[in-house]
Amino acid sequence: MTSPLALGLPTAVGDPALPSRVRIYEVGPRDGLQAEQAVVPVEVKAELVRRLVAAGLTSVELTSFVSPKRVPQLADARELVERADLDSGVGHPVLVPNARGLNDALAAGVREIAVFASVTESFSRANMGASRAEVAAAQAAVTREALAAGVGVRGYLSMVFGDPWEGPAPVAEVVSASIALMETGVSSISLGDTIGVATPGHVRSVIRALVNAGIEVERIALHAHDTYGQALANVYAALLEGVTEFDASVGGVGGCPFALSATGNLATEDLVWMLTGLGVKTGVDLEALTATSAWLAGHLGKPAASRVATALSHY
Amino acid sequence: MTSPLALGLPTAVGDPALPSRVRIYEVGPRDGLQAEQAVVPVEVKAELVRRLVAAGLTSVELTSFVSPKRVPQLADARELVERADLDSGVGHPVLVPNARGLNDALAAGVREIAVFASVTESFSRANMGASRAEVAAAQAAVTREALAAGVGVRGYLSMVFGDPWEGPAPVAEVVSASIALMETGVSSISLGDTIGVATPGHVRSVIRALVNAGIEVERIALHAHDTYGQALANVYAALLEGVTEFDASVGGVGGCPFALSATGNLATEDLVWMLTGLGVKTGVDLEALTATSAWLAGHLGKPAASRVATALSHY
Repeated sequence: MTSPLALGLPTAVGDPALPSRVRIYEVGPRDGLQAEQAVVPVEVKAELVRRLVAAGLTSVELTSFVSPKRVPQLADARELVERADLDSGVGHPVLVPNARGLNDALAAGVREIAVFASVTESFSRANMGASRAEVAAAQAAVTREALAAGVGVRGYLSMVFGDPWEGPAPVAEVVSASIALMETGVSSISLGDTIGVATPGHVRSVIRALVNAGIEVERIALHAHDTYGQALANVYAALLEGVTEFDASVGGVGGCPFALSATGNLATEDLVWMLTGLGVKTGVDLEALTATSAWLAGHLGKPAASRVATALSHY
Repeated sequence: MTSPLALGLPTAVGDPALPSRVRIYEVGPRDGLQAEQAVVPVEVKAELVRRLVAAGLTSVELTSFVSPKRVPQLADARELVERADLDSGVGHPVLVPNARGLNDALAAGVREIAVFASVTESFSRANMGASRAEVAAAQAAVTREALAAGVGVRGYLSMVFGDPWEGPAPVAEVVSASIALMETGVSSISLGDTIGVATPGHVRSVIRALVNAGIEVERIALHAHDTYGQALANVYAALLEGVTEFDASVGGVGGCPFALSATGNLATEDLVWMLTGLGVKTGVDLEALTATSAWLAGHLGKPAASRVATALSHY
């Protein structure tokens, strides 16, 4: 039986109400691999990044400059940055949690970083061991110093749609946390559905609230998790609101350890499949991407948590 | 850690642009179990139906009156109908492929049936061993006789969004096949994404084409498959077009044997999760439904192909 892709499926049906092109922000090497039990050798990570870029991804987050004691999976941060091509025009941000991480990242020569904040106090304490206010102060200082060094800064916001301790996240708190994050100088803000509980109407209402509060939609990204299977519906909802940047992880690797689930990040290939069907350009070659996903699954010793990867593996 | 449901998640965010209530047409006992390798005892099937009804489902397709040689999993069709409560107000249709099946169904006392047709010639021959014209003629005769006996008839249309031999399905052919099916007297038509290749814009364009051709949106249902992870995005797209009936299968059991994938039918619990978040009423109790899904998975000896079932199993 012939693969759907070889048959010209999914059918591309354009819609003038949607953005004509979006950017995929690939988080597999960092957000994905940090959550895997296996420690992947730096050569394999470098090859993964090379393959993702060859597949057409233009933003590939490399790693995080965190304590190797806390996250041993990313202890090779500096070596991975050294192996990446930072002059190719592809964005290779790294996550930076604090001043020490920023120093290390700058010493390694990175040009872009990502910082984070939490909507909820509980997650801040559980994940970062500090209050929201403390995390925000550290993040603001990191952002200021990075910008002064000519380094771009992206902001992640966690637990935007709910929290595993506090339950629903009030939209007013999401708005105030977003504004506070933007005011530190980040270029954009990625709305994290950290435990995967967002649904499409909720996504739209949060985006509208942020736009009403003065944040341009071009500066809003969605970081959807597929824990409850809602990720693509949420992406479609965000597209209808004009969002043009989406986080995803090749093979769906990684996710939030507080979600108690094997499935976390939206798989990049599932996202590209939908965008292909919607006629929204991404620049990503779906076949090269699914080949990369299969290659990574081989190194991780388990099948990809992606519906597209699973289905295409039968052809 | 507390279950998201106990914390009041997903947050219900209503949207006046969506239908306030939809009907879920549960296909697990028939479409699901016919595709499973295991032959499930009739007592277990009857208990499954009872549990689905207790969870709040109001349309539960029971079985198919097909040749037991062709589909041994459904050889107990008559016994299952005898064990079901046909007077409870819950709809219990059965699938009927031909005149012989209709005779058996009527003899068993069924009040509703479902019939089917294919958009593509290739699927008609592969699945039914006859041309589209032959299948359509048999279906029209079955429908006429059923209506004369006071039995309601629902129509399934297969391969609406693409076919594993012919590739893309032209919308004009979907429209003509839909009109032909409606003209035989069926009360509604279920648009089958048999191999799971639909994406949201495609779904909307097909629904609009059908409505423009004079088919009321109230008579259109969507039968989404989650093979490539697109099912819920497609349901959301259909909701935006006003569709109010959705097929789904508890635990995601079953699917199309021609899709070469382990995942097929949209899982009912994933659908109910999204609708809960959208504030769209279904009458279904999500906790009772996921308990039923887990119970069925135990009988089938494998985990449910549902993101919600998988994630909630950790709590």
